[in-house]
Amino acid sequence: MSKLLIKNAYIITMNSEREVYENGSILIENDKILKVGKIDFNDLGNNVEEYDAKGKIVMPGLINTHVHLSQQLGRGIADDVDLLTWLRDRVWPYESGFTYEDSYISSKACCIEMIKSGVTTFLESGGQYVDAMVQAVSDTGIRGCLAKSVMDQGEGLPAVWQKSTEEELKTQIELFEKYNNSAQGRVKIWFGLRTIFNNSDELLIETKKLADKYNTGMHMHIAEISGEIDFAKATRGTSTVEHLNKLGILGSNLLAVHTVWLTNREIDLFRLNDVKVSHNPAAAMKVVLGFASVPEMLSKGIPVSIGTDGAPSNNRMDMMREMYLTSLIHKGRTLDPTVVSAEKVLEMATINGAKCALLDKEIGSLECGKKADLIILNPNTIHSLPMHNPIGNIVYSMSSENVESTICNGTWLMKERKIEVLDEKELLEEVKTQGEKIRKKANISLNSNFKIIK
Amino acid sequence: MSKLLIKNAYIITMNSEREVYENGSILIENDKILKVGKIDFNDLGNNVEEYDAKGKIVMPGLINTHVHLSQQLGRGIADDVDLLTWLRDRVWPYESGFTYEDSYISSKACCIEMIKSGVTTFLESGGQYVDAMVQAVSDTGIRGCLAKSVMDQGEGLPAVWQKSTEEELKTQIELFEKYNNSAQGRVKIWFGLRTIFNNSDELLIETKKLADKYNTGMHMHIAEISGEIDFAKATRGTSTVEHLNKLGILGSNLLAVHTVWLTNREIDLFRLNDVKVSHNPAAAMKVVLGFASVPEMLSKGIPVSIGTDGAPSNNRMDMMREMYLTSLIHKGRTLDPTVVSAEKVLEMATINGAKCALLDKEIGSLECGKKADLIILNPNTIHSLPMHNPIGNIVYSMSSENVESTICNGTWLMKERKIEVLDEKELLEEVKTQGEKIRKKANISLNSNFKIIK
Repeated sequence: MSKLLIKNAYIITMNSEREVYENGSILIENDKILKVGKIDFNDLGNNVEEYDAKGKIVMPGLINTHVHLSQQLGRGIADDVDLLTWLRDRVWPYESGFTYEDSYISSKACCIEMIKSGVTTFLESGGQYVDAMVQAVSDTGIRGCLAKSVMDQGEGLPAVWQKSTEEELKTQIELFEKYNNSAQGRVKIWFGLRTIFNNSDELLIETKKLADKYNTGMHMHIAEISGEIDFAKATRGTSTVEHLNKLGILGSNLLAVHTVWLTNREIDLFRLNDVKVSHNPAAAMKVVLGFASVPEMLSKGIPVSIGTDGAPSNNRMDMMREMYLTSLIHKGRTLDPTVVSAEKVLEMATINGAKCALLDKEIGSLECGKKADLIILNPNTIHSLPMHNPIGNIVYSMSSENVESTICNGTWLMKERKIEVLDEKELLEEVKTQGEKIRKKANISLNSNFKIIK
Repeated sequence: MSKLLIKNAYIITMNSEREVYENGSILIENDKILKVGKIDFNDLGNNVEEYDAKGKIVMPGLINTHVHLSQQLGRGIADDVDLLTWLRDRVWPYESGFTYEDSYISSKACCIEMIKSGVTTFLESGGQYVDAMVQAVSDTGIRGCLAKSVMDQGEGLPAVWQKSTEEELKTQIELFEKYNNSAQGRVKIWFGLRTIFNNSDELLIETKKLADKYNTGMHMHIAEISGEIDFAKATRGTSTVEHLNKLGILGSNLLAVHTVWLTNREIDLFRLNDVKVSHNPAAAMKVVLGFASVPEMLSKGIPVSIGTDGAPSNNRMDMMREMYLTSLIHKGRTLDPTVVSAEKVLEMATINGAKCALLDKEIGSLECGKKADLIILNPNTIHSLPMHNPIGNIVYSMSSENVESTICNGTWLMKERKIEVLDEKELLEEVKTQGEKIRKKANISLNSNFKIIK
């Protein structure tokens, strides 16, 4: 049995009472939280590692509810271009040539960027090499809900991705049976649904049946761009959400990502069916989907969480930045400075994220019996002092630089900015080499308006 | 004569050709750039300090065109509240009790935060202790255009700020004569105009005459909130900009800050009169002013630059973050992913900033004869690799963490993340102590929706 005591910290529990200890401690045994709050240090037993977090903040690890691990090495291949160029000339050529090795290095790099910005759990949208993603999660110590990218139709799809409905379903069942709960339980396998452009009704219906049978989640891009609604109307006779409702897909195990183009009735359908939502503010602006109705969804009680999306869309897998954006853009959009407060944003990035991951009994708050997934923030920087108000400071002033340590499943993944799970310098070199190799293979050339002199 | 050669760098000059050297060098002599681009190393003379910047990016220092130095210690005192609470219950009580010492520590902290995020020149909106700001600029090595906060009217103004028109004008002339071009020329004194709420027509007219006479700039918040336009119409019979036009205030030495609520005709008036604009995206969302028409102003040729605003509004004095926001929010707002491209954002933060500072002959680009104001970016981090596209990478992926070194007027202010001009740890302690002292003096109490346990 190994124990870790983190003491003298400002502890934000995110429990149902939202208790915050100005001077508290947390005791961890193996992968679980044993005690939190005011702890009697005389009653700890032997072999306890002690860590003094005086002047620092301890809070639950952040939960990134939408990310594409295999797009990590494509950071910057699709800036400032329209959506069709983004998809067909950049992201598809880039990702469709992938090998297992490309996917493994990409996934590992993405996990490390997340760990360095305080993420302990992520939800993968869907890639081709789920085995490589499992390996990356296993090696980096993070927690992840993984899915395959599932497409049984769609105009212009690269040939390598054209699969039948049966193939896509069969592969996913195999993946679930092989990998769910692997890596000390840190890997969960979900069912993927790309978009209504790429999924037949049969696939949608059968996936829902499987997700119910296996008691797991479905991850789908929904109401992402206005053109999607037009497409759904033209091919299904109604909007994406109305169509999913008719097919019986809406339910508590569906994570709807982006949801920029929802009607009020569709928001109500989400609420009635306990659908989960992932809000991705940076990607929604950069690849131009618009602004989701986040304050409206939150006020109706929908568990809206936060995601980063993939590297060609954002271009950072940084939940600290995404929290800041979430708080800001809805104030700007609604002209109301009190909406989506710092406290609300913290809820979105922790306990709401856990609900979206279908893991709120295990993670998302610091409570006895829950998994020891937490981060230590150090506010002692020139950009975050003075700290008149710690929670506001986290959301509005801090950045990933302030995430000093990340613990997942009771293990230090990063301690005082040093990645403990692998050699970070070596990884940086791998990322450079592999990124260049993939871009050349995909034959992507990037132009500049500036005059580049070799 | 002291010389510095920075070699083997990716150099973004921002000159009129927008030349970028994939492998270039820059030679500095004292405070000026002697050579830039392809340099013959055999021809340098003696006593040259050499710095190898292989794998790194060199570009002009960023220019923050709107900041409140004396609000720095009030970071986090006014989050998630409406504008009237923000102003009257938080910022005014906080700032109106200031002493010289409060202002000096606040200003120094603000300058250091800026230096650490790559700023070499800033434009101060206006504070009460211009002498303290001059001292901070002098001590930290940065370049600044300083102004006094000038108010000769306004409802609810703290008594200590109620001055007559004559007093305000006289003080500013004295400040100009005493401090303009001090600190090795790094200090410029501007004339301040707070807002149309706080400035009489006489003050506006006389200030314009003085700015013309002394050949300096005027810094004013314009069309900041919709209520300002209503106020101008009620008291002046027309909108702020139309009224300033009638008074003859619009001109090439006017910096208009925020400019969220402009009509198309007013944008044309700005263009015709060569008015300069400072866009502050974070503050505009957080304190809820809305989204300025930036792509529209840029396309008309107005030199729009970028500013952070003060710490209670933003809450970071971080131009790297502000560049990212600028690129994103206008894409989201216009639903066009190609507007305000990464290249355009770099122009706004450098050469457009220099135009707004009325210093584009001296700073804003790396060219022979200009001041040696530059930064070195290190892209070698997990959040900014791979770097398929350096300029996109700066705007979309890097953060202030990637600003490795900052040089102003030929002097290293920060070298490889170490602040060279003062003891940063000592400053952090001063910031904590003084911040707490001021908040208590101002009697500001902050509530939380969370349950805080002492």
